[in-house]
Amino acid sequence: MLTMEKDLETRLANDHHQAIKLWLRMLTCTNRITGKIRSRLRENFKTTLPRFDLLAQLERHPEGLKMSELSKRMMVTTGNVTGITDQLEAEGLVRREVDPSDRRSFVVKLTPEGRRLFGEMAAVHEGWVIELFEGLSSEEKETLYALLGKLKQHLNGKEAQ
Amino acid sequence: MLTMEKDLETRLANDHHQAIKLWLRMLTCTNRITGKIRSRLRENFKTTLPRFDLLAQLERHPEGLKMSELSKRMMVTTGNVTGITDQLEAEGLVRREVDPSDRRSFVVKLTPEGRRLFGEMAAVHEGWVIELFEGLSSEEKETLYALLGKLKQHLNGKEAQ
Repeated sequence: MLTMEKDLETRLANDHHQAIKLWLRMLTCTNRITGKIRSRLRENFKTTLPRFDLLAQLERHPEGLKMSELSKRMMVTTGNVTGITDQLEAEGLVRREVDPSDRRSFVVKLTPEGRRLFGEMAAVHEGWVIELFEGLSSEEKETLYALLGKLKQHLNGKEAQ
Repeated sequence: MLTMEKDLETRLANDHHQAIKLWLRMLTCTNRITGKIRSRLRENFKTTLPRFDLLAQLERHPEGLKMSELSKRMMVTTGNVTGITDQLEAEGLVRREVDPSDRRSFVVKLTPEGRRLFGEMAAVHEGWVIELFEGLSSEEKETLYALLGKLKQHLNGKEAQ
């Protein structure tokens, strides 16, 4: 009885340890990859990851995004989205337009020049991502994608909590 | 011949698409989890993830860390590590001490109060992580851990590049 309890305890402790180890490794991989992309964007395009991220979100939404939507969609910053938008607008890469669905509000869109520049960066960025994941075979990438999908689904189910 | 080329093209395009999809999903999962931990730290301990992260790094290094080492080890911020250290020092959770190996320099350490508070938060934090990964079975977590290990190894091999 004591042995069984002890075994259960050990198993639980291992399970717990496993989740933390997994989470720290996931965070490490994500940080390594964003770190590499960050420095390559700087070296190759003299730009930052938050700026690239903002342009990427706008590229996926040609109808434009409100500032609040844009902030929510950003993948790599919790920082100053208004400040980044101001900079990009001053450089002619994005513009603010009156929101047709709410004339007191505005949406942010790519300019043609912003779209052209983002397209150029996105193609090179895609090459980097392919290279950074080259350590995994196509089958392994598929498995990793599926496992992360299951994790994401579980996390979505907790959305309200 | 044309068909074979076309097939190769399609397969390459799929492979490329796969790496980007995988990376975006990994980033999404990481963001969801840090988002949840961020809001739970705020609600339960009125603290932030960068503060928790800084205490966690010091807890692993009882001998103390130089500011430069601390900055490098942080998992969740590229932000103001000096500012966070100043705050935590003012609250009596960390202290700066002369570095015994270089008396012109200093290291940061947890105070006994900082160690006590971090221990309390770390136990609760571990429970959250276990819960957030509960969507995966123990075997699936093991597989995910191994795949991320392989990815990490590949990324480490690229360290000099």
